[in-house]
Amino acid sequence: MKAEDNDKPGVSRRYINQALGIGLAAATLPGSALARTGEKKAMTHELKTGGDRGYLRIATEEAFATREQVDVYLRMIREGKADKGMVSLWGFYATSPSERATNILERLLDLGERRLADMDATGIDKAILALTSPGVQPMLDLDEAKRIARNANDLLAERCQAYPTRFYGMGTLAVQDPEWSAAEIRRGAKNLGFKGVQINSHTQGQYLDDPKFDPIFKALVDVDQPIYIHPATPPDSMIAPMLESGLDGAIFGFGVETGMHLLRLITIGIFDKYPSLQIMVGHMGEALPYWLYRLDYMHQAGVRSKRYERMKPLRKTIAEYLRSNVLVTNSGVAWEPAIKFCQEVMGEDRVMYAMDYPYEYEASEVRAMDSMDMSPATKKKFFQTNAERWFKL
Amino acid sequence: MKAEDNDKPGVSRRYINQALGIGLAAATLPGSALARTGEKKAMTHELKTGGDRGYLRIATEEAFATREQVDVYLRMIREGKADKGMVSLWGFYATSPSERATNILERLLDLGERRLADMDATGIDKAILALTSPGVQPMLDLDEAKRIARNANDLLAERCQAYPTRFYGMGTLAVQDPEWSAAEIRRGAKNLGFKGVQINSHTQGQYLDDPKFDPIFKALVDVDQPIYIHPATPPDSMIAPMLESGLDGAIFGFGVETGMHLLRLITIGIFDKYPSLQIMVGHMGEALPYWLYRLDYMHQAGVRSKRYERMKPLRKTIAEYLRSNVLVTNSGVAWEPAIKFCQEVMGEDRVMYAMDYPYEYEASEVRAMDSMDMSPATKKKFFQTNAERWFKL
Repeated sequence: MKAEDNDKPGVSRRYINQALGIGLAAATLPGSALARTGEKKAMTHELKTGGDRGYLRIATEEAFATREQVDVYLRMIREGKADKGMVSLWGFYATSPSERATNILERLLDLGERRLADMDATGIDKAILALTSPGVQPMLDLDEAKRIARNANDLLAERCQAYPTRFYGMGTLAVQDPEWSAAEIRRGAKNLGFKGVQINSHTQGQYLDDPKFDPIFKALVDVDQPIYIHPATPPDSMIAPMLESGLDGAIFGFGVETGMHLLRLITIGIFDKYPSLQIMVGHMGEALPYWLYRLDYMHQAGVRSKRYERMKPLRKTIAEYLRSNVLVTNSGVAWEPAIKFCQEVMGEDRVMYAMDYPYEYEASEVRAMDSMDMSPATKKKFFQTNAERWFKL
Repeated sequence: MKAEDNDKPGVSRRYINQALGIGLAAATLPGSALARTGEKKAMTHELKTGGDRGYLRIATEEAFATREQVDVYLRMIREGKADKGMVSLWGFYATSPSERATNILERLLDLGERRLADMDATGIDKAILALTSPGVQPMLDLDEAKRIARNANDLLAERCQAYPTRFYGMGTLAVQDPEWSAAEIRRGAKNLGFKGVQINSHTQGQYLDDPKFDPIFKALVDVDQPIYIHPATPPDSMIAPMLESGLDGAIFGFGVETGMHLLRLITIGIFDKYPSLQIMVGHMGEALPYWLYRLDYMHQAGVRSKRYERMKPLRKTIAEYLRSNVLVTNSGVAWEPAIKFCQEVMGEDRVMYAMDYPYEYEASEVRAMDSMDMSPATKKKFFQTNAERWFKL
């Protein structure tokens, strides 16, 4: 399938024009980075793999699904055992007749020629793949969850071996069983060639700052690999006002719940316990970089006033942890001002490219990222060498 | 009381040094705005009112409390009738022996000489005052809620008349009664000299996009005044994972819940219905400016796929509404990178200064804002003329 802006799934040329409109509106501001992007670049260049622009494009948050995974979601929804977020998210993607849902589901299920053709068409040299959200974490039958996770990991490893120059894998975990997950992290690193693991935020309303999940972090540090915290829909204990207003998914709920998850880990002192641990998050850091001043101010104020038993002094500020232990990708945010903001606040070594295929498969976004007003050295870090460094490719 | 960095409530010189440390760490990045701020400015200048730096400082999100308001909160907590957020927030501020809580409560209750002395000590020329969060919105006895709101509004009007060059008022509303609130908006504008109203996000779990609150917006447009949506703790339907981790308040929960409130209003089409309406939010826009690209992309995708009955096409993009109908203040975020980001994305006419007194009373922050690397004309808009324009001072 040839990738042109006007045959993308779910999002039309009308949207693309509107998205550019953001830049055009901002172009009235003198000196604006949006103005520079919007006015000076035609953004019609051909997208090719192979480094013709001085860098390879490595996409770092790319999703696939297995049929048995989706079938369990549908069974859970049918049996009334799914949480509200799964009903909203997978009730849509697995059953909606909309162009967006059908195109995405088809692409999620492919780990071969169709995906490679889409990568070729948008100039993506390499994809770092992970089982799509919420993985097996919501599954109530633990044996089933482990079986589906293991099958997905075996499949992913086989596909990465089949296309060793194009595909890399992050393993998935049945987080419900921390010891099993720790063993699966070690199997992924030692036997399957994986470069890290991805989890999909909460596990049935529980977060990784609970001490019972400690074996997972211990295993990650042992194998010296990163963990990517991908969004999930918020748990039932949080989702109601977002769900009733249609804001529970990628538009808003994903981000705030995942940002909260990372903040829970930072404030519990995960990086004091494991100073070498690297945690990745997408979507420009799930807004934590933007909140950073307030996070540090209110965290320090809370620690001093002893408002919460849980809030203990940390060795470093939250800003410092973001610059030593957190990595972000621009999945879902093909937007120069936010990328530059993040590079400024966290350091240009810590911001990486992601397409978020197939949820956001947009040739125009790749061109916009190619066209950023940024030094060649910094742009190469963004597209290529940061991913090579942090995933140890 | 003289304002020096080392006798501020709740936040010590250690924190201030750490906050500056954000800038110093970033100073290793060439061309960084943080580097410019951190390296080149001594930030020891005297803070005076009267415009010695070319602008008056108008602080736009400044809080006060009445004793009867706080007493009702305490009674509700005692009787088990408060929501979880009130127990957390006012259980702390009204009863904690910590320096932070006691200093803040004392300052909240003063609308006279002590407040003016604090303003003088930090060079604040004018303060736009509003009853502190959550106002009377959580009060279950509607007659009591209206009485306390009316008393607070009468008190505030009297204090503004007593200090007409220093204090301006935003009225408070018993949002529970939309018709009463509409009448109080008109009374505030016509009889009390108020410049707008402030509400504290949700009202017992309900949001202003519910059609029953339409009289409030109709009255605002009739009197041509803005509404400021101040944070509250999230409702019980959302707070659980934040509360258990100490993140329900200003550090995180405030912002995501208020950002969601504004996003609910935008996506329901409030600005298509009331094109002249101006909504203000603090804390650098509660992160919506940073989320902007993703908001627009996923909103358009959701509208096209008809995933939610509620999500209808709008006349403009969310980015365009932020540039025509939304105003932000930097309350709680005395941080040049975020302020400049917001000016770039929303336009420099839409970003205003706020101190967030007494919750964040920091002379060092005023100096940091004075010292931003920004043209004199833009800085005057930020500190003075945007507030004069949008509040019609």
